[in-house]
Amino acid sequence: MDLHFLGTGAGMPSKTRNTSALIVNLTAEGRGYWLFDCGEATQHQILHTSLKPRKIEKIFITHLHGDHLFGLPGLISSRSFLGGNEPLDIYGPAGLSTWLWSTLQLTNTHLNYELCIHEIAEEGIVIEDEDFLVRVKKLEHVIPCFGYRIEQKPLAGKLLIEKALAAGVPKGPLLKNLKEGQDVTLADGQVVLSEDVTGEPQQGFTIAILGDTKYCDASVELAEEADIVVHEATFDNETGNLAKDYGHSTIGDAAKVAKNANASALIANHISARFLPSDIAKLKKQGQETFENIYIAEDFACFEWRDGKLNEVKNTE
Amino acid sequence: MDLHFLGTGAGMPSKTRNTSALIVNLTAEGRGYWLFDCGEATQHQILHTSLKPRKIEKIFITHLHGDHLFGLPGLISSRSFLGGNEPLDIYGPAGLSTWLWSTLQLTNTHLNYELCIHEIAEEGIVIEDEDFLVRVKKLEHVIPCFGYRIEQKPLAGKLLIEKALAAGVPKGPLLKNLKEGQDVTLADGQVVLSEDVTGEPQQGFTIAILGDTKYCDASVELAEEADIVVHEATFDNETGNLAKDYGHSTIGDAAKVAKNANASALIANHISARFLPSDIAKLKKQGQETFENIYIAEDFACFEWRDGKLNEVKNTE
Repeated sequence: MDLHFLGTGAGMPSKTRNTSALIVNLTAEGRGYWLFDCGEATQHQILHTSLKPRKIEKIFITHLHGDHLFGLPGLISSRSFLGGNEPLDIYGPAGLSTWLWSTLQLTNTHLNYELCIHEIAEEGIVIEDEDFLVRVKKLEHVIPCFGYRIEQKPLAGKLLIEKALAAGVPKGPLLKNLKEGQDVTLADGQVVLSEDVTGEPQQGFTIAILGDTKYCDASVELAEEADIVVHEATFDNETGNLAKDYGHSTIGDAAKVAKNANASALIANHISARFLPSDIAKLKKQGQETFENIYIAEDFACFEWRDGKLNEVKNTE
Repeated sequence: MDLHFLGTGAGMPSKTRNTSALIVNLTAEGRGYWLFDCGEATQHQILHTSLKPRKIEKIFITHLHGDHLFGLPGLISSRSFLGGNEPLDIYGPAGLSTWLWSTLQLTNTHLNYELCIHEIAEEGIVIEDEDFLVRVKKLEHVIPCFGYRIEQKPLAGKLLIEKALAAGVPKGPLLKNLKEGQDVTLADGQVVLSEDVTGEPQQGFTIAILGDTKYCDASVELAEEADIVVHEATFDNETGNLAKDYGHSTIGDAAKVAKNANASALIANHISARFLPSDIAKLKKQGQETFENIYIAEDFACFEWRDGKLNEVKNTE
């Protein structure tokens, strides 16, 4: 799993930070990309990476402010033009469906794939399939805003092949059954238990991706014991009064969420244009007074999740 | 008057050409900017120039395809945030008003200025003030699409000050009256005619800015005797069949419009991404078989209109 930060600014685009967009790349997990928020020019940002719009399989919108939304019609249109023909599911607040369908109709936009827009009516589980579980909670912003928690389900333990062969299992389909957790009966009537020839189940990852919000309990609940928390930090600790007025967080608030949730890592985004590149180290330090393992995301920053560890690996631009 | 090409691509953004947007900068004429079309990320393109969104006083939309429209909500929102408080007028096809107002409402966008959206119901004059006259005609595209003709009204002839003083006019307000075309009566009863002490009226410029279209008579009519024609050239002469199928023009069609209208200069835009930078010279040459004075616009190309002459002056990036 990789995280590609495509837009890490707040409110308006600047030369260095675009409006909000984050791709969770699940191709290593046998899935596509999940895009969280889609500010204007998200498709333009993608042009500067090796990512492919047709691989986006789900889009999650945290809230209906323009800096999280205005790139959506263009992106889903280009996804079609660029060969996307697999269904696309979009999740977001009430109002999204009417607006998006009317926008596509107004502009005579035809999609070569099935588009399904799911308006989230209440907190709880919005997706559960064999690989993932996605929960949503309402955060505290000036308009309705969601936070998402993505839990990868435990992965089957690895097949201990030497042990299986020693137990008399022949090479072939029975090994696959054992790997998938099924006990098998051999030709001689002997029963081999899957648990005897597989390793421990491996824990999946948990990420909390939170929309614009003040510090709130819902954020802590979504982020509980998470491997990675992505939290906005529009302001620094000195401008905390503005954060409160506008329903936003300081870097200190974001750090407090990560700490109180006992999370492993915090990636802060949605950084105000008032902060220059030279201010970022100070911002990080402020957060680290509360929670040590902080990253401040930049546009095109990429984070890899491998074997239970998070690494900021490269600029994907 | 300057023309700033912000987006010269067709259909989708590419790394080198954004979707459609063209600013006519009228600050030298005592006005603001007039923006023609507003594809996604037009405000991002502006970030790479010295242009100011708050100076946009009118926006003209040729048609409601996304590549001419999807930057509008973000731009008008940022115009407000960046200090724009003068009224903004937007002109375009039916359907624009409902969509734009509902988009602003959905996203809880407040503007610090008066927004007036004018849906164009029929061909004819859409603006006439003391400086300019704007006419509109329907072109031939796959959805309703307009072309605009902007005529600057004749400018008053220069005051021949030595001649006025010789005629006995005292320094002061009477000179201003004469300059503005009013005859004046001196203290001794003598009448001085404005036409006797001013030079010839100067002709204003005429620009035709045409939306997506096949070759059509309406384009020629809008472009008649124009100083500058901005015409799409999505295809080259070899792909003319595609142009017809999609309601677009070849470079040859664009040149034919300029020639048949007896225009002075043609600037071609809306160039398909199929054409690489190395193909542009060939495209130009194809057009020049029909009409000599052709420019192929690039993103950030700027054209100055000074003393009746057009010059491609610089890259505004």
